[in-house]
Amino acid sequence: MDDRIQLWNDLATQIGVDSIRCTTEAGSGHPTSSLSCAHLLSVLYASHLRFDVEDPKSPANDRFVMSKGHAAPALYATLKAIGAISDDELLSLRRFGSPIQGHPAPVPELPWVDVATGSLGQGLAVGLGMALAMRLDGTGGRTFVLLGDSEVAEGSVWEAMEAAAFHEVDDLVAILDMNRLGQRGPTMHGWNGDLFAGRARAYGWHTIEVDGHDVAAVDAAYSEAIAADGPTMIVARTEKGHGVSFVADHEGWHGKAMSPEQAAQAIEELGGIRSLTITPASPPDVKPLTLGELQATPSPTYTEAIPTRKAFGEALAWLAGHRPDLVVLDGEVGNSTHTEDFQAVAPERFVEMYIAEQALIGAQTGLQALGKTAFAATFGAFLTRAYDQVRMGAISRADLRLCGSHAGVSIGEDGPSQMALEDLAMFRALHGSTVLYPADGTATVQLVATMCDLPGISYLRTTREATPVLYGADEDFPIGGSKTLRSGDAATIVAAGVTVRESLAAADALAADGIAVRVIDAYSVKPIDAATLRRALEQTGVIVVVEDHRVEGGLGDAVLEALAETGPLTGRVVKVGVRDMPGSGTPDEMRAWAGIDAASIMARVRGSLA
Amino acid sequence: MDDRIQLWNDLATQIGVDSIRCTTEAGSGHPTSSLSCAHLLSVLYASHLRFDVEDPKSPANDRFVMSKGHAAPALYATLKAIGAISDDELLSLRRFGSPIQGHPAPVPELPWVDVATGSLGQGLAVGLGMALAMRLDGTGGRTFVLLGDSEVAEGSVWEAMEAAAFHEVDDLVAILDMNRLGQRGPTMHGWNGDLFAGRARAYGWHTIEVDGHDVAAVDAAYSEAIAADGPTMIVARTEKGHGVSFVADHEGWHGKAMSPEQAAQAIEELGGIRSLTITPASPPDVKPLTLGELQATPSPTYTEAIPTRKAFGEALAWLAGHRPDLVVLDGEVGNSTHTEDFQAVAPERFVEMYIAEQALIGAQTGLQALGKTAFAATFGAFLTRAYDQVRMGAISRADLRLCGSHAGVSIGEDGPSQMALEDLAMFRALHGSTVLYPADGTATVQLVATMCDLPGISYLRTTREATPVLYGADEDFPIGGSKTLRSGDAATIVAAGVTVRESLAAADALAADGIAVRVIDAYSVKPIDAATLRRALEQTGVIVVVEDHRVEGGLGDAVLEALAETGPLTGRVVKVGVRDMPGSGTPDEMRAWAGIDAASIMARVRGSLA
Repeated sequence: MDDRIQLWNDLATQIGVDSIRCTTEAGSGHPTSSLSCAHLLSVLYASHLRFDVEDPKSPANDRFVMSKGHAAPALYATLKAIGAISDDELLSLRRFGSPIQGHPAPVPELPWVDVATGSLGQGLAVGLGMALAMRLDGTGGRTFVLLGDSEVAEGSVWEAMEAAAFHEVDDLVAILDMNRLGQRGPTMHGWNGDLFAGRARAYGWHTIEVDGHDVAAVDAAYSEAIAADGPTMIVARTEKGHGVSFVADHEGWHGKAMSPEQAAQAIEELGGIRSLTITPASPPDVKPLTLGELQATPSPTYTEAIPTRKAFGEALAWLAGHRPDLVVLDGEVGNSTHTEDFQAVAPERFVEMYIAEQALIGAQTGLQALGKTAFAATFGAFLTRAYDQVRMGAISRADLRLCGSHAGVSIGEDGPSQMALEDLAMFRALHGSTVLYPADGTATVQLVATMCDLPGISYLRTTREATPVLYGADEDFPIGGSKTLRSGDAATIVAAGVTVRESLAAADALAADGIAVRVIDAYSVKPIDAATLRRALEQTGVIVVVEDHRVEGGLGDAVLEALAETGPLTGRVVKVGVRDMPGSGTPDEMRAWAGIDAASIMARVRGSLA
Repeated sequence: MDDRIQLWNDLATQIGVDSIRCTTEAGSGHPTSSLSCAHLLSVLYASHLRFDVEDPKSPANDRFVMSKGHAAPALYATLKAIGAISDDELLSLRRFGSPIQGHPAPVPELPWVDVATGSLGQGLAVGLGMALAMRLDGTGGRTFVLLGDSEVAEGSVWEAMEAAAFHEVDDLVAILDMNRLGQRGPTMHGWNGDLFAGRARAYGWHTIEVDGHDVAAVDAAYSEAIAADGPTMIVARTEKGHGVSFVADHEGWHGKAMSPEQAAQAIEELGGIRSLTITPASPPDVKPLTLGELQATPSPTYTEAIPTRKAFGEALAWLAGHRPDLVVLDGEVGNSTHTEDFQAVAPERFVEMYIAEQALIGAQTGLQALGKTAFAATFGAFLTRAYDQVRMGAISRADLRLCGSHAGVSIGEDGPSQMALEDLAMFRALHGSTVLYPADGTATVQLVATMCDLPGISYLRTTREATPVLYGADEDFPIGGSKTLRSGDAATIVAAGVTVRESLAAADALAADGIAVRVIDAYSVKPIDAATLRRALEQTGVIVVVEDHRVEGGLGDAVLEALAETGPLTGRVVKVGVRDMPGSGTPDEMRAWAGIDAASIMARVRGSLA
């Protein structure tokens, strides 16, 4: 035991020293937030985390998530100690081009990090998703999440606490690094570990309180947490800047690197530079569970009008029989988004997250990090609740397949709180995202199938009402494509989703008056079919873009962008979308009010020809 | 007492009956969710809420927030019972043009509603903001918030629980309508009132458990809650659909209106239609506190480079001495956003919300509902965490003055998790929003002063680094304006914030080569100065738009939109912005990497002239 204590302490000291060295070298960063968790990391990696450094993506590995992402130096120092990165790499912290970024990000050169952190309060939900994936695969793996005490003010943490207890995940361990100091000064609750532990117990978690710098006690806490039933929170009382006299528990040292002179003194106080290397325990041999024989059914086809949200659910149910990696999550609206169709055929791969959209996306991020093809759905309006999680998903290089139902004013009577009107703007602005907005059931099914293999953030926007069938079952819907549904050179209407139907009605009425208008279904909003749009502008001189979304940031802006990027501008582009605050009404009334119904579109086209 | 019990029960029955009547008339809506809270509303409005129906905006009034917004019919039925709206108005529920929308919204015709609800989990933070406003004004008013049991899965609720306890607001009462049924079926915890109460106590709240249909018990609970120190949660066990045999506690009745036949039966079971009118107790005479003499100082002026985030803080500190209605909230980063400058001079009007951005915006919404001019600030990246709250703020017709600091890749070493790169897109897409992005300290001060009187959602984007002084202290910055800083007809560069400096350097270098390029500072991103942009396109033929933001949804799209809306398109528009996923680096390295530094801009301008 004495040897182990010596090792844990030496390793913790090394993690602290290396955190100081790399931040001083960088001239910025968070050494004190790293020192508070050094012992917690040391004992974890030396004695509890089962992890193959050579095969970091092995499904047999335990997982660690540094939710307090600003303590990245401590994580990198630990990765050095396990031989994953070199000392030179460590010292490249925060340098341009280095994978050792200011906050952890799973860039290709850093496969030992699974997800990006740095926006606080997100790691626990990710850990929950990992634990759910491990349970599905029967690996018996453990997930450890290190939280800061400032970040537990984020409600997202408590969404994850709630969901973890409800789903009875067994091998999820949250470690609260209670160093009592936030960015500006003391946290709300200081070292009141009883308060944090009491809350965790009120959420159904097992809790352990411990001195976070007493390695034997920390070791015992990990052992107890692993042995305990259900999720466990270890509340570790720590000191920010522990072990260095002039920063330990001092205010004013958040996010500050030491000067070279201060660093030299600190390292001397800590006993100098070390170069220990440890090897984490090997993960057990596991053979991931495989599902029994899947019930493969043919893909849904449609001959009658159906809401695209319903086609989405039917597509998932169909894919359940072909893709054992498919997992679906919902925010307690599965009878609206129609993920219930998937749940009906694959209940063990459906995760009910209740009304907690942040935990919904966090858990999805964790599931995909462990290889699941995960879809998450709720009303498009409520995905705004998780925009930060999706944004961090993009930084995590996560493959997040999202569906937002109840798009636009077309939902009708429920009113604006339930209408997705900013979702296209929100998803379009994310790096590497794909934004899809099908107009009929056939297109929906094809696009959902395609999404299963799309990297990055992909978003499918669905409609509450039934829309008529436009396409045959063998039609392809490539990403970045479009469909020209009416030909004509007088003008072009670009639409997507529910406005395709309205635009076709407008075009047909105009055709009856001898005005031949082209209609393009831009089901792929991002990337958009720039070549077809450019040709339409050059051939027809006028493009009227109609969307059930606010005029800013959505389809209209995507069309303008495509035109600007493909050559000189010419002709006219008229953006038609929602420009005022809606209320309640029937879907038809609301579309007429917004000016996106067939009659309004006709008028806009006529006006643009004048 | 018997008379009071009779009245409360009769009134509750009327609220239930009227909820059924108006939803059946509408053909949609939430009668069963209304029936579960009818007694809670009846006792509250008849005997505890002090409210002048004729003067609903009086600061002396107590306030009620229907956080479970889908129970809007019960709220409208209550408003009918207090004589605020007529029976005909009630029966216009969900009709096009009616203020009686599917979910409550404070449209001008409905001054008895302060904020919009319908996106769940938001009401408690709003109530907290109201309680803070009442404390500032010394009105002694009380705030009551009715929560559903499904919505407490939202972490935002627990952010508000935490903040209310921390700020020791005294007269905030949360009422949990524990009807055990969510949209799809049972909630996670059913009728386990002890669990909810235990959690609330773990957050420092006083709790009371009660049968939510026992009016005497409900009355006693309100009295106890009002008398108690600190915030109180009343956990009320209720039945969804209470009092109607075929829906009471039945699954499958969420969000469903009864048929006319069902409604008739239900109303008969409830004893028929009533038309009671009650008058809530009058609010006490209060004279809102006034602050002592304000320390009016002259506005900050700048002759040296300063970060716009610092100028933001100094502007608030200056305005503190002129605007007693000014209140500032921050998400525990006041030393980064520089709201600490305001806190230093007006600590009693500064609210530290810690790292809980949803509660930050919710509380701000409550403060402005009671007349405060409220600013909220955090990193722009972290405002994504509260996008749903800001969206609901727009529906609430709230005047939310927001500042997001640390814009773009220019923050440098901290990396992408801390970089606001989607914020312009996010705010631009909101109804009636104003989006401002100043390039220097002078512009910042002027725009902050202007924001104090702007209606709706206004967003100021600030920069971490110092930027040079561009403007004299007497320069005006009208909303919708721009500044042409260099003249020339070879091409136009449109920039904002930090890219103005880079664009000026590019233009000056090009000028040295005999290429005269116009440079426009588009500090007002929305509304944007369309006339100046149109003229620039027509006179120079080329516009290069440069922004430290993702290319989608931000300044580039705003420029294209302005050009499309002002006439035929002509010439070229080149959008320059962030197109890949950044890492860490110095600000200069990151701008060069993104192609938004002076050298890259020069190259893009030259390329567009070719």
